[in-house]
Amino acid sequence: MIFIGERINAGFKDVKAAVIDHNADVIKEWAIKQTKAGATYLDVAIGTASNKPEDLCWMIDAVQSVCDTPISIDINKPLLLKEAIKICKKPPLVNSTPAIAEKMDEILPIVAEYNASIIGLVMNEEGSPKTVDKRVENGGILLAKCMDYGIPPEHLFLDPIIMPLKFMQDQPKVVMEAVTQFQLFSDPPCHIVCGLSNAANGATHKKLINRTLVAMLIGHGLDAVILDVCDTELVDAILSAELIMNRSIYADSYIEAFRKQ
Amino acid sequence: MIFIGERINAGFKDVKAAVIDHNADVIKEWAIKQTKAGATYLDVAIGTASNKPEDLCWMIDAVQSVCDTPISIDINKPLLLKEAIKICKKPPLVNSTPAIAEKMDEILPIVAEYNASIIGLVMNEEGSPKTVDKRVENGGILLAKCMDYGIPPEHLFLDPIIMPLKFMQDQPKVVMEAVTQFQLFSDPPCHIVCGLSNAANGATHKKLINRTLVAMLIGHGLDAVILDVCDTELVDAILSAELIMNRSIYADSYIEAFRKQ
Repeated sequence: MIFIGERINAGFKDVKAAVIDHNADVIKEWAIKQTKAGATYLDVAIGTASNKPEDLCWMIDAVQSVCDTPISIDINKPLLLKEAIKICKKPPLVNSTPAIAEKMDEILPIVAEYNASIIGLVMNEEGSPKTVDKRVENGGILLAKCMDYGIPPEHLFLDPIIMPLKFMQDQPKVVMEAVTQFQLFSDPPCHIVCGLSNAANGATHKKLINRTLVAMLIGHGLDAVILDVCDTELVDAILSAELIMNRSIYADSYIEAFRKQ
Repeated sequence: MIFIGERINAGFKDVKAAVIDHNADVIKEWAIKQTKAGATYLDVAIGTASNKPEDLCWMIDAVQSVCDTPISIDINKPLLLKEAIKICKKPPLVNSTPAIAEKMDEILPIVAEYNASIIGLVMNEEGSPKTVDKRVENGGILLAKCMDYGIPPEHLFLDPIIMPLKFMQDQPKVVMEAVTQFQLFSDPPCHIVCGLSNAANGATHKKLINRTLVAMLIGHGLDAVILDVCDTELVDAILSAELIMNRSIYADSYIEAFRKQ
């Protein structure tokens, strides 16, 4: 499983304040904490805290000063992306582009140039689709455009877009079916990712819903997730689902072995 | 979800002793406890504790003296079944028959006569199948035989047979695919059940594996489960998976509402 740690995001108050005050300690702590918890990538999102490239670069520098976990650059503004991607020590993941031609034509050349990976959201000018077919259609458009720019399927992370369960209860089933179909696009297949927290938005039993849903999505082929990687029970559910899918070799101590890594 | 409480089984020491000593209190306590925990059926298994029909009937009487939860008669011996099914106050579930002609021809006429339901194990003379195809083939044989005896698909619970993950790690994926295919047999479809505990046999993180696996199976269409219904975390995972599958209507208090029932 590819764990994308969501916590270095200026949507969180502590990170926003850290960006504004250039207090690197907060960023560094989250970088270390999430890396220890098993993050494969660390998502770095500046959000509305600043629109200056140097602030985003400062965040990335802070992360890279304490760990070598690859960065997920959470931006879709080409100007900021161009500056940020330059300073990444390892090929980053770019989060994200929708299936909109002009957006893809801005973002994907940069992704290709730096041998980076890209999260492709299966939405377009009309917004987020509600059906399996529309998700699959947009996924196909994203993959085709990646191929045009020489980005291999393994560098594309398709995001089927999870909707809040509370308000759109028919959507998770649709997403599962889309996940199944995404795997038929290419061989090797692209990755399939989701921003998990969105599903339980506004729900009371958030963590329970998150860990149940992620297991169900893994059962359909999900292999990457943007998550609170410090949520131990969530990670345990993911490790178990991976074991059940025969993606990791059974050991009685499979949880403990992951923690020791 | 159809919850089949597994605990009144003489495979458990306390129940075995209760059967031998005719100590009804143990049986009654488990009947009440599992009913309160949400059991739809209470499985009653005499196992090797006795082969006398009157002992099995005594167990069923003990259960029915304290609750009106329908019985799952866990026996495949026609002589015992015939006596036990007579005294059930509600149409029971019979657990189980394999896809073996002579066995089905013994069991299914009794099931049909009492308007009962039947768990059909997708195994035959050759044992438990390892492939999707063989499971689906045996499932089809079970359904066809049920139809022959006038048992409707809704009274058939197909069990794809879960193998211990620890020893056969490729099997859960195969089972998920079989579950998906079982739903294509008929409209309305048959139920799909599994004996959950078998999957984590010999594993260290049994409960975690159980609740992760059950969510994944529900994501593929499982709608009944033989389980430790007193395992609160397991039931919570199932309730969440049902919600995610849009089988129950979202309420912030979906867990609490189930407990109050």
